[in-house]
Amino acid sequence: MLRVGLLGAGRIGNVHAKAISTHPQSRLVAVSDVNAEAAAKLAGLYGAEARSNEAIIDDPSIGAVLIATSTNTHSDLIEAATRAGKAVLCEKPVDLSLARAQACLKAVGATGLPVMIGFNRRFDPNFAALKAAADGGEIGKSELLSITSFDPAPPPISYVKVSGGLFRDMMIHDFDLACWIMGASPDQVTAVGTSIVDPEIGAAGDVDTAVVTLLYGDGRIAVIRNSRRAAYGYDQRIELLGSKGLLSVDNVLENTISKATAAGVVAAKPEFFFLERYTRAYSAEWAAFVDAVTKNSPLPVTLADGVNALAVAEAATRSAKTKSTVDLASVLS
Amino acid sequence: MLRVGLLGAGRIGNVHAKAISTHPQSRLVAVSDVNAEAAAKLAGLYGAEARSNEAIIDDPSIGAVLIATSTNTHSDLIEAATRAGKAVLCEKPVDLSLARAQACLKAVGATGLPVMIGFNRRFDPNFAALKAAADGGEIGKSELLSITSFDPAPPPISYVKVSGGLFRDMMIHDFDLACWIMGASPDQVTAVGTSIVDPEIGAAGDVDTAVVTLLYGDGRIAVIRNSRRAAYGYDQRIELLGSKGLLSVDNVLENTISKATAAGVVAAKPEFFFLERYTRAYSAEWAAFVDAVTKNSPLPVTLADGVNALAVAEAATRSAKTKSTVDLASVLS
Amino acid sequence: MLRVGLLGAGRIGNVHAKAISTHPQSRLVAVSDVNAEAAAKLAGLYGAEARSNEAIIDDPSIGAVLIATSTNTHSDLIEAATRAGKAVLCEKPVDLSLARAQACLKAVGATGLPVMIGFNRRFDPNFAALKAAADGGEIGKSELLSITSFDPAPPPISYVKVSGGLFRDMMIHDFDLACWIMGASPDQVTAVGTSIVDPEIGAAGDVDTAVVTLLYGDGRIAVIRNSRRAAYGYDQRIELLGSKGLLSVDNVLENTISKATAAGVVAAKPEFFFLERYTRAYSAEWAAFVDAVTKNSPLPVTLADGVNALAVAEAATRSAKTKSTVDLASVLS
Amino acid sequence: MLRVGLLGAGRIGNVHAKAISTHPQSRLVAVSDVNAEAAAKLAGLYGAEARSNEAIIDDPSIGAVLIATSTNTHSDLIEAATRAGKAVLCEKPVDLSLARAQACLKAVGATGLPVMIGFNRRFDPNFAALKAAADGGEIGKSELLSITSFDPAPPPISYVKVSGGLFRDMMIHDFDLACWIMGASPDQVTAVGTSIVDPEIGAAGDVDTAVVTLLYGDGRIAVIRNSRRAAYGYDQRIELLGSKGLLSVDNVLENTISKATAAGVVAAKPEFFFLERYTRAYSAEWAAFVDAVTKNSPLPVTLADGVNALAVAEAATRSAKTKSTVDLASVLS
Repeated sequence: MLRVGLLGAGRIGNVHAKAISTHPQSRLVAVSDVNAEAAAKLAGLYGAEARSNEAIIDDPSIGAVLIATSTNTHSDLIEAATRAGKAVLCEKPVDLSLARAQACLKAVGATGLPVMIGFNRRFDPNFAALKAAADGGEIGKSELLSITSFDPAPPPISYVKVSGGLFRDMMIHDFDLACWIMGASPDQVTAVGTSIVDPEIGAAGDVDTAVVTLLYGDGRIAVIRNSRRAAYGYDQRIELLGSKGLLSVDNVLENTISKATAAGVVAAKPEFFFLERYTRAYSAEWAAFVDAVTKNSPLPVTLADGVNALAVAEAATRSAKTKSTVDLASVLS
Repeated sequence: MLRVGLLGAGRIGNVHAKAISTHPQSRLVAVSDVNAEAAAKLAGLYGAEARSNEAIIDDPSIGAVLIATSTNTHSDLIEAATRAGKAVLCEKPVDLSLARAQACLKAVGATGLPVMIGFNRRFDPNFAALKAAADGGEIGKSELLSITSFDPAPPPISYVKVSGGLFRDMMIHDFDLACWIMGASPDQVTAVGTSIVDPEIGAAGDVDTAVVTLLYGDGRIAVIRNSRRAAYGYDQRIELLGSKGLLSVDNVLENTISKATAAGVVAAKPEFFFLERYTRAYSAEWAAFVDAVTKNSPLPVTLADGVNALAVAEAATRSAKTKSTVDLASVLS
Repeated sequence: MLRVGLLGAGRIGNVHAKAISTHPQSRLVAVSDVNAEAAAKLAGLYGAEARSNEAIIDDPSIGAVLIATSTNTHSDLIEAATRAGKAVLCEKPVDLSLARAQACLKAVGATGLPVMIGFNRRFDPNFAALKAAADGGEIGKSELLSITSFDPAPPPISYVKVSGGLFRDMMIHDFDLACWIMGASPDQVTAVGTSIVDPEIGAAGDVDTAVVTLLYGDGRIAVIRNSRRAAYGYDQRIELLGSKGLLSVDNVLENTISKATAAGVVAAKPEFFFLERYTRAYSAEWAAFVDAVTKNSPLPVTLADGVNALAVAEAATRSAKTKSTVDLASVLS
Repeated sequence: MLRVGLLGAGRIGNVHAKAISTHPQSRLVAVSDVNAEAAAKLAGLYGAEARSNEAIIDDPSIGAVLIATSTNTHSDLIEAATRAGKAVLCEKPVDLSLARAQACLKAVGATGLPVMIGFNRRFDPNFAALKAAADGGEIGKSELLSITSFDPAPPPISYVKVSGGLFRDMMIHDFDLACWIMGASPDQVTAVGTSIVDPEIGAAGDVDTAVVTLLYGDGRIAVIRNSRRAAYGYDQRIELLGSKGLLSVDNVLENTISKATAAGVVAAKPEFFFLERYTRAYSAEWAAFVDAVTKNSPLPVTLADGVNALAVAEAATRSAKTKSTVDLASVLS
């Protein structure tokens, strides 16, 4: 039985608490949060204790820590937890600073402890099946990957200001998906962004709509479309064109009903947002982490993957500003 | 906390055990089965005890009994459990004999205890949404209901022989759905059946493919199609034509991937069988039962509904044999 | 060049006139109609002459006659045209009286001339592809055929009164489709009909919603659903369940657009009615007729097929009234 | 009756000949081609004469000329035809040289004669309905346009070498669609291209897979994906994300059949290539041209539109080479 401490009792902390508690091989022991009330409430739900971050990290009976705090604390907590000998599952992104993330990677590497980054989409059964089909050669050689990711509505402007920007905060999921599906990091990143959904986002120096094109060393291309607003719900699709065909993952819909009237045929919308769409993915993610930790087998997503996606986000941020293609190597050096 | 005894530890008993155990207001206390090993194994999974039917029914600390034993024991166990003052959720059908089921209904009625029949499909969120849309007048006045229910593969011939026949064993689900969606029992039942999937089924006096048409007093029609074999999986669809349009519930698919190649565009099949398709429905069914029992509110499906569906099945059986329409009243008298 | 006379300049006559005129090997020479103005107008559009039925039939330069007049004239015109040595394409049904149709078949048989009945749906490329796939064994052995045919709106009550009833007027198309796809006539016909769309239809002794089940000698079943009203357009679908899978033909939609908003995802409706849905089928039907006539090869639909479908309609009419299954043999004897 | 001369009797010339001949207000009078046999054959099909380009352009009885010759002759023929007082419909692109196209525009402008460029996709009923829905405000304010255009297979390498490259030859259709749907020219063009389908295409200095992002002055973005090879057919889709929803045009499929078996559910592929997919568009294009010419009303697509799309193609070509965003203004100056 893996005894787990959860750092962060916000929306995503609640999701993870449930996954930890319903997994037959893990148990939620303690919960912390800057908001003591939130920690107490969540801990209560699952028969766990509310504690401080430190008290959790220092508890030798706890084998794993799940970090779901605000981004600016991730690197420090990862380092502290691994220093204390714990396995870690940390929400994305590793950090807003690529340099800090790289330093964290170096520090953790020295400990040899497993640190996984929560790129939940890899665990969506639909995306996973696309990856498996592509790797199995079902469409021949991959050539052009297209990822669509539109949120239902923009976050509060206060969040936007500390988010690190759309590329580091939102598209980082898609950068990781692209690297994972393509099995490689891109050589070059070309980004175009605009603020058209909400002028306040532009005023805050960020974009809300963006298209990023990744060029791989072997000539493959990936294109990612992000928008902070899709009035019809969370739009999460992937297409992969290969030499022998096209693989597509369409949205998961709210239900399978349709209604045909004189006004047309109305079907359900996509699931509203990530909590609904990725319910199964969060469970699968946790199960994969428990599996790797308890069996001492390779993690399905590593801290290095998290640093890599951040590097692509950094390159995209630069490209959008300079209006020219950025070599990933130039960001990493 | 509702303490629950589960009678029957077979495939469907396992499904119910999980639903009982994960519901926050119910707890699986004891499990029985003619196969003692099966009972012990299932009880062990959820920290319950393996006992006899009698020991469960006689235990005053147990408030509800879930009956998932073989059909021929249902009526007796329902009566025994209600005599012992317990709330009951019993798998369909109530009995193979309409007269026996009617007697059971009468006996239970005297006790005033809640007995619900496990017509799980009413709890499928898609079908429930169709019912709500129809009741909400979204397609005007209902006129023609069509239910498709094809199993992936026929059961063993040994099961067919004791099943009571396709109408009582399989189509009874659809009879209940039709009565529920239409909000009424049909006046007349017209059935056509054939044995074309497996000649052994015909040799056993049963059909494996059938079409039944129900005519309601106000002129509405329902048509049900059943087949014991659909090579592509469990085909569960409903269409309701009304004066202003058509409501359709399509299958729940295994995933949202499609693959386009020179050979065509291949998408996923329907979920394989009832365990996969109705996962959410079983949880919702149990939650509805707990809710009704603990709040002393009306049951969403009653024993009378179970008897009613059986009467329609009886009429269909007669119609298929006599090759003429059967009045439901003639079956009930 | 096949010189053609068209009898009947109504809505369907106009469709045929266009098909005749645009076919490279046929030419519209003359048009007749009880409404002289209609005949003149249609003739004018295609550089043909307006004449009487007799003048067309007596013209030795005319090789083929297309009969698109009212049903009660079909048999007489077929006989007159074949007596005059002409090939004939006649709209369905052959006649409202089965005996009269059988007499016509006998009379025509003596002439040896080609008479084709206009069951246009056989020429729909989608239905034809289903037939080809079934015949090619793509789903193994056929078991259960389901045909859905809903008109967008009921015809005027004056038409209903002379139509011969839904089974002879509307479902006759589906009877022919069933016989064609199954490659055989059914042994038994079981019909349930109701008048729920429009009480005036019931008052006129007809039904507007019906389900007919056909049982074949080898145990196969076909079920046909008809409604005189589908608010969303012309609903024309076929499903064929076989031992290895299911073939489905879905509706042809008005366009391929969809619109996703907070209100759901709206797609196009089916094409409005037969003129839109079967545009290509009418051209293909005429081309097949020209091909058979000019090459002296077998007709794709024969007069006997027309008589056969009428016999099934007769059996359905009787079955709906007697509320019992009718043997097709009893209708034919 | 508009008397028409057709210059060019190749594959696309044949399509146009049919459209001209079946339009009730136009007549194909003469056909020319560098291959005299091809011209004679096509002329023969429609009762026209085979002539030289000059003889057609000099014939005062001919009111309109359709130019379907090789690209390098377009500008000269447009100028010659307008000098001779003829209305012109010319296939895209106007020219491979932007400067030459601009000169042609200037020359034609002086004549005041109608010159339309054959951007056939604007006449696809699906795309036209998307444009109408967007202009009608059905999804609020437009924000992100996405165009997918994949050919089924690359052209011969000999054609690639004289094509002007993917951006001028293939994506020019999409540049025009984007300008038309957005109702404006972009300010900035960012292109990423690769040669991964066929290394010979790369060796010829061209790309076969490309993603181009257009940024409009008001912050809107359009992204275009092109590939020279989609093994499953011609992939032609458009999506437009707006403040209130998403409009999508999906592919036109070969038929509406699907087949469900244990291997999955197989549906039809997209129509194979432009001749199949845009059959109706070519007719509508010609009808729009005839309408504008005979009524002296504005052309739906102008020569200036053709020059504009070429300018975007020029910018994309430069961007792909320089790996930086190109201002459209810099190309035009």
